[in-house]
Amino acid sequence: MKLVIGNKNYSSWSLRPWLLMRHAGIDFEEVQVRLFTGSFAAEIAQYSPAGKVPVLVDGDISVWDTLSIVEYLAERFPEKALWPAGRAERAFARSICAEMHAGFTNLRNQLPMNVAAVLPGRGWNVAVQRDVDRIAQIWTDLRARHGDAGPFLFGAFTIADAYFAPVVSRFATYGIHLPDTAKAYADFMLELPAMQEWIAAAREERDFLADDEPYRLAPDRADAIIIHH
Amino acid sequence: MKLVIGNKNYSSWSLRPWLLMRHAGIDFEEVQVRLFTGSFAAEIAQYSPAGKVPVLVDGDISVWDTLSIVEYLAERFPEKALWPAGRAERAFARSICAEMHAGFTNLRNQLPMNVAAVLPGRGWNVAVQRDVDRIAQIWTDLRARHGDAGPFLFGAFTIADAYFAPVVSRFATYGIHLPDTAKAYADFMLELPAMQEWIAAAREERDFLADDEPYRLAPDRADAIIIHH
Repeated sequence: MKLVIGNKNYSSWSLRPWLLMRHAGIDFEEVQVRLFTGSFAAEIAQYSPAGKVPVLVDGDISVWDTLSIVEYLAERFPEKALWPAGRAERAFARSICAEMHAGFTNLRNQLPMNVAAVLPGRGWNVAVQRDVDRIAQIWTDLRARHGDAGPFLFGAFTIADAYFAPVVSRFATYGIHLPDTAKAYADFMLELPAMQEWIAAAREERDFLADDEPYRLAPDRADAIIIHH
Repeated sequence: MKLVIGNKNYSSWSLRPWLLMRHAGIDFEEVQVRLFTGSFAAEIAQYSPAGKVPVLVDGDISVWDTLSIVEYLAERFPEKALWPAGRAERAFARSICAEMHAGFTNLRNQLPMNVAAVLPGRGWNVAVQRDVDRIAQIWTDLRARHGDAGPFLFGAFTIADAYFAPVVSRFATYGIHLPDTAKAYADFMLELPAMQEWIAAAREERDFLADDEPYRLAPDRADAIIIHH
């Protein structure tokens, strides 16, 4: 299996299936396509007709868009129990993932994922806070329900944890204040070995996507490659 | 089972699970909550913590967001074969549904669903046309592959048909030109009895959501209730 991803610093969509597979111990070859470079369109067209990252390639099957990829993996590796086992909990997990997939637009527009940056206070507004509050409530409720079963949202690791991982990264970058239980979960996720591996790789990247950087005029590193799209 | 939906004229998200259940013959009680009225927030809070339509209520399980609802129904009614049976085709169906769920933003912003309106040419621009072209290509490819097996995208009716139903409605409202095969599929879907039932009910609605009407200053009917949000 190949997982085609974008820049680790910026591509929140890529982080989800990558973290899911890495933490769950599903082997894959990583193919990285640099976002917004001149060759992106031609490179990604080899893998997906939708022209976006991430894409999972399994033999002659191409699966795109994160939600479709995680459903594919859940079916393909039933022994990994990637969704919670009970019908009600599985429905709940899918609901919050789908809500994340198409919702929280204020948060996503105002606080774009930027793993390597430290930008406390930037981008915040009251509409962002409503999204933060809703996410903190989801995490807090789930931790109250499943805290005895393990440290993840549903006790054991599931797709839901991978799905919220980019939000964990955003909260860190922008210094978002969280209530205690939600903060404890976010801190735990940041320390997860797979997450640390992604963060370290993101910090090594040199691409500075100028048009995805609403709060910085210049990169923090001298050897950066500045890309406009 | 209860399906909580919004206005049939405007709520593209509501149409998807409604059409899926109606055409597949899954019994449900319909609960309608009028969008953007003063009582909406309190009414929808009874059914979903996310505060949005649609919501599927099955006993004490609440499922929200269309993608989560359709996955729930596919698991709950395996005999209905709501996803295609083969792994590759099922992955493809999920990929195009997920792509629709979070993508095609130009089309969705410029051509909001408005079942009762006739607005040929409004909202179109080149970015919309790129979305139209991609959707027409998806439909054309699938019809070429599955035309022998039946009139739907994968031959037999699946979630994918329900998922693209709001697009079919938009193309009709805004008079979007389609290549022949895509047009034949759109025409077929418009005539589906479940779709006709939805359209007829949408035409009966009196709510005119002024802020969701970029191309009309006033409703076409004298007894309309004008709602600002």
